[in-house]
Amino acid sequence: MSTDGSFEQLTLRLAEITDLQKTGALLFWDQRTKMPPAGAEARAEQLATIGRLAHQKFIDPEVGRLLDELSSYGDGLDPESFEASLIRVARHDYEKATRVPPELTGEIRRAGALGLRAWHKARTEKDFSRLRPALERNLELKHRYVECFERGAETYDTLLDDYEEGMTTAEVRAVFDELKRELLPLVQAAEPVEDSLLRLELPREGQERFARVVLERLGFDAESWRLDETAHPFMSTAGYADIRLTTRWEPGLNWLFGVIHEFGHGVYERDVDPSLARSPLGTGVSLGLHESQSRTWENLVGRSRPFWRYFYPKLQEAFPGEFGSIDEETFWRSINRVEPSLIRVDADEVSYNFHIILRFELEQELIDNRLAVADMPEFFNAKMEEYLGLTPPDHALGVMQDMHWAGGSLGYFPTYSLGNVMSVQLFERARADLPDLEEQIERGDFAELRAWYRERLYRHGRKFTPKETLERAAGSPLDAGPYVRYLKSKYAGQ
Amino acid sequence: MSTDGSFEQLTLRLAEITDLQKTGALLFWDQRTKMPPAGAEARAEQLATIGRLAHQKFIDPEVGRLLDELSSYGDGLDPESFEASLIRVARHDYEKATRVPPELTGEIRRAGALGLRAWHKARTEKDFSRLRPALERNLELKHRYVECFERGAETYDTLLDDYEEGMTTAEVRAVFDELKRELLPLVQAAEPVEDSLLRLELPREGQERFARVVLERLGFDAESWRLDETAHPFMSTAGYADIRLTTRWEPGLNWLFGVIHEFGHGVYERDVDPSLARSPLGTGVSLGLHESQSRTWENLVGRSRPFWRYFYPKLQEAFPGEFGSIDEETFWRSINRVEPSLIRVDADEVSYNFHIILRFELEQELIDNRLAVADMPEFFNAKMEEYLGLTPPDHALGVMQDMHWAGGSLGYFPTYSLGNVMSVQLFERARADLPDLEEQIERGDFAELRAWYRERLYRHGRKFTPKETLERAAGSPLDAGPYVRYLKSKYAGQ
Repeated sequence: MSTDGSFEQLTLRLAEITDLQKTGALLFWDQRTKMPPAGAEARAEQLATIGRLAHQKFIDPEVGRLLDELSSYGDGLDPESFEASLIRVARHDYEKATRVPPELTGEIRRAGALGLRAWHKARTEKDFSRLRPALERNLELKHRYVECFERGAETYDTLLDDYEEGMTTAEVRAVFDELKRELLPLVQAAEPVEDSLLRLELPREGQERFARVVLERLGFDAESWRLDETAHPFMSTAGYADIRLTTRWEPGLNWLFGVIHEFGHGVYERDVDPSLARSPLGTGVSLGLHESQSRTWENLVGRSRPFWRYFYPKLQEAFPGEFGSIDEETFWRSINRVEPSLIRVDADEVSYNFHIILRFELEQELIDNRLAVADMPEFFNAKMEEYLGLTPPDHALGVMQDMHWAGGSLGYFPTYSLGNVMSVQLFERARADLPDLEEQIERGDFAELRAWYRERLYRHGRKFTPKETLERAAGSPLDAGPYVRYLKSKYAGQ
Repeated sequence: MSTDGSFEQLTLRLAEITDLQKTGALLFWDQRTKMPPAGAEARAEQLATIGRLAHQKFIDPEVGRLLDELSSYGDGLDPESFEASLIRVARHDYEKATRVPPELTGEIRRAGALGLRAWHKARTEKDFSRLRPALERNLELKHRYVECFERGAETYDTLLDDYEEGMTTAEVRAVFDELKRELLPLVQAAEPVEDSLLRLELPREGQERFARVVLERLGFDAESWRLDETAHPFMSTAGYADIRLTTRWEPGLNWLFGVIHEFGHGVYERDVDPSLARSPLGTGVSLGLHESQSRTWENLVGRSRPFWRYFYPKLQEAFPGEFGSIDEETFWRSINRVEPSLIRVDADEVSYNFHIILRFELEQELIDNRLAVADMPEFFNAKMEEYLGLTPPDHALGVMQDMHWAGGSLGYFPTYSLGNVMSVQLFERARADLPDLEEQIERGDFAELRAWYRERLYRHGRKFTPKETLERAAGSPLDAGPYVRYLKSKYAGQ
């Protein structure tokens, strides 16, 4: 081995840091689902302490020394081995983490927490001016953050790399330009669909029962999954094989597509190879690829005809008063309508991308100082008008609708649409490999599809770079073509 | 101040350690109530990591340096001030923690975890020989642990001090001898009471509903409390003002007295003064005093006549089929019967103490090498026969019924009976201060009683030593008299 135990030492340190990160995930999950409200103050301190310790332990010079010592050992290994991947990923993360002074990391974290608090208030009061100082502070810190790194071709590249490693702004722009060109006509041609059933008040207990029927069919089991209620749904892994989905029970059917969406995130984490557990390799490789899976299960599977051929009779049985007299085709059209709307998270499959594109454009203007924070609302509304023909009646339904910017995330949004794009690249490949996939789904059988994703994507975790991972799984680099064709064939005729 | 910021540095370090401890409490609570079973392996690692980090951070020589530097500063302060108490308690804890080599601490923790695993198996198979090696290992480590400290008058003193700081074996023995002398006749004179209603199968949802009615009346509120189901009930604080009770819904009424018991632990933690939060002072001062509160609310309040004058009609309303035709007096006698039984946690108020006394005696034999682990079952059964006239039909219902020894706790049991003793000392004082306490309880009004305990006991947390705390609150040192008189007057006539 000739590593004198250095590799074992590195592994142990990374395992401890992973324990801290997962513990942080549990603190967060509990805060959002179970914690009594009065526990908030103590919880904020606990989250800060655990986050700080994980960071301190990672940027410890001893980690750098071990990585230096292991450098030639790693070069001599099969690059696809666990050891080589671990050294490569740890080196990459370490170099990023140590470029940023710990004080700046602390300030960014604190400003994000304060920003979220300001966001809650500002949104309630629909008053952007109450959020502005927090956004200005976040932006100032982002500028300082960006300066810690070597400049890429564009300032935004540095931001993007935190969420989608190795992706450049130019690459995203090319993909998004194609989406704009190809999809805007679809949005503009969209005709209103009768969709009152998307606003039905279904009984809460029936919602949960049906959600569990669907989830269990997809592969959720009590042995390693949970489903709980929360205000802003998310998926969290509190540890290997401990997958926690959340949803909000509410009128309409968002709760249902929400749980299927979170299932997609969850199954990626659940099916990472167990040998990667307790290491930085044991999680999804990028936000884009993660989102590709939530969108696959939510849209490509969960809004498909074969899916509802199996589940619609069950939905009718669960809610006979509401769906008993509505036929499957009407239902399917409702859940697949295209109709521009104000809120990103409620958007249909096609117009969703324009919510993302406008944020991507706004973020670049901000980080390059071409747009002042004070002018964000105007910019946002102008783009909403340009792409979707809508003007938000107030800023709570406009520029303040998402928590990302308030929390200090800049460069995150594009990964949502990148996920859409990748989802179809991967799904087409799966379909080619599983010729009777439609029939399987129609029978409510998702085992082979999940196994395909496990084999091609999930099990690898972060063993390869996001780009390598996509290419290995999809057989091609990032390409908007399949996604555009999918949407056109699904929606052009409507 | 003349501390050059040393006090602030110490406070900050202790706050971080408290964050880690509370985080550990959440990991534990979640493991027992919410975690999907497959998360167990990752959770064990997380618990170990968080525990190790909290310990490492505490025994850091820098903590010792700060304490040395603050020594004369502390001496010059009002001994009742926050600062003086914090320095004193931290010094005490630090000296104990640093006497034990970290490797030994680690081995003790690991052996305890393995012991618990062995205990689960051995109990299922009713086979003591499967547990024996783990107990022998725990005992061996305890011997090494004891050697880290200066010898007290008896070896057992060192064990006891971990759970009831400052209490000696001789003091406990004196109290327990009095209990034996005074209470054994009560146990032996006990006559069977018709108690079939203690085994009634009440519907689970009704149990939870009624438990919440009682808890809310006592002072449980959704703002800072939770109640969840678990296999082995406990109370846990996941952070200041974040109080989590657990219970097991089961036949009979144990679930009800169980939640009231855990409420007693919870209210102590809830009502610690907020200024002590995030410090080692912000928790109950000893296991004995903690147990005094769970036993106060469970027995002195929850099994009293005025309590049931208020709640019995509500219980009848909640379960009309089961209690509708049973009068209050019959009910009260059932829940207050004295009847020797095999299982400690199911024991009545009087015979409970003999379960403790025999364990206290057994533990001393063990730690002083007068008893081999292999001979524990025989010793246990002989004592059961001597005190309670019962012989366990197997070791699962005998020497293996509790998890304490398997988990590595030796010296813990006496605090349960010490809690009983202290509970009456305190309650008599409360009753003297609140002359219409009975009427208040009869009205379902517990606010003044809770306020009394808050003022005299709860708010102080660990600001004073356990002995000082008891004396300040009860007005007298440890004394079995009031407890014996209470039990005699309650049970001698039956």
